Amino acid sequence: MTAVAQVQALLFDVFGTVVDWRGSIIAELTRFGAKKEIAADWAAFTDDWRGLYQPAMEEVRSGRRPWTILDALHRESLDKLIAKHAIAGLTEAEKGHINRAWHRLEPWPDVVEGLTRLKSRYIIGTLSNGNVGLLTRLAKHAGLPWDVILGAETARAYKPLPQAYLASASLLNLEPAQVMLVAAHNGDLAAASAVGLRAGFVARPQEYGPHQSKDLKAERTWDVVCASFGELADAMGC
Amino acid sequence: MTAVAQVQALLFDVFGTVVDWRGSIIAELTRFGAKKEIAADWAAFTDDWRGLYQPAMEEVRSGRRPWTILDALHRESLDKLIAKHAIAGLTEAEKGHINRAWHRLEPWPDVVEGLTRLKSRYIIGTLSNGNVGLLTRLAKHAGLPWDVILGAETARAYKPLPQAYLASASLLNLEPAQVMLVAAHNGDLAAASAVGLRAGFVARPQEYGPHQSKDLKAERTWDVVCASFGELADAMGC
Repeated sequence: MTAVAQVQALLFDVFGTVVDWRGSIIAELTRFGAKKEIAADWAAFTDDWRGLYQPAMEEVRSGRRPWTILDALHRESLDKLIAKHAIAGLTEAEKGHINRAWHRLEPWPDVVEGLTRLKSRYIIGTLSNGNVGLLTRLAKHAGLPWDVILGAETARAYKPLPQAYLASASLLNLEPAQVMLVAAHNGDLAAASAVGLRAGFVARPQEYGPHQSKDLKAERTWDVVCASFGELADAMGC
Repeated sequence: MTAVAQVQALLFDVFGTVVDWRGSIIAELTRFGAKKEIAADWAAFTDDWRGLYQPAMEEVRSGRRPWTILDALHRESLDKLIAKHAIAGLTEAEKGHINRAWHRLEPWPDVVEGLTRLKSRYIIGTLSNGNVGLLTRLAKHAGLPWDVILGAETARAYKPLPQAYLASASLLNLEPAQVMLVAAHNGDLAAASAVGLRAGFVARPQEYGPHQSKDLKAERTWDVVCASFGELADAMGC
């Protein structure tokens, strides 16, 4: 039996792999700014917001702060950036609405059809640093046909800590080798692979916009390497 | 705003409310017995199996044993009943297969259409004592279109402990009053209601077979009382 033939569940990184967070957030902020007549560099604002993502999670991963869900980390980062970019006059309700833009991201065009094919043969779910409430609403917004919502919150550990991957397999009654992580990020796949999961790379060379410098291609011979969820479904025999 | 108008998520008890566990298990054991030429009173065997359900969970709820998932409790009960009913000659693989009959239960006839209607307007998910792996496979088997799989394992507490309900609401970023538990069991609804959830009763007078003596009707004026998931969808404006 090949390594991939043992796989019973495909769990997906979400931000960047499934959804175009950057394009979606820029578009939503741009619309919001136009309506509110607030001028700002919304692309820079978005990149700054994502720039605070890893440092915020690292505070939790390191144990320096107790478990905190991503929605709360996003909100703290947003408050910092509203100050940094000198954006005035936002109500609490408006700040909450902007923060929930992460619940309304758009999928890459190949995603829904590819997931629907994969769902016919495998358990498909999330393995994301997003919290359950975020991922559940995002799935409804984007029409993502997940069987199960798993990730950092159900594991109580942010990727790339081993527990994030191992707890997700365990929650499905599966051994690590029976689960494939699908991600557009070599580092995420390396961490999953190190604890025994299978690894599927899907290239998303536009995730960080026109000047993306990393994760342009697979940096190892992962179990599957492809350019879309359609190719992934082909490779997995769906 | 009425109480029900605040509801954003409907979370469902599963065994008995969504699926006909008794009819499904009896049918599967009967087929298995015929194929293996094992004579037994499979209806009594099934009722005995369910009879060990609450005592097994109570060991965990009481703190006398550490957290243990329902698949493992089911398996321990199965081993006791194989001895009690003097059933000989089963392999480990066969015992595992029988235990996973709880992953292959059939829904009541009104369920899939009703859930599909409710899903268009609400987050729909489980709030079950079943573990995530069980509930995920059951959903695929029965075609249940859940948005999210929640319950005892994600809360680390078996119903009717308050934490089972409160953690499920919290995982969805919702207040208890924004979540309705839907169940065919007055006791489950009483526990959910006591910690602030809304309560929807769906009568399943055949759950325990032809001689059912409890939960034949709503024992309080729950927020919604109905006889099918179609009526529930009507009541919830879907």
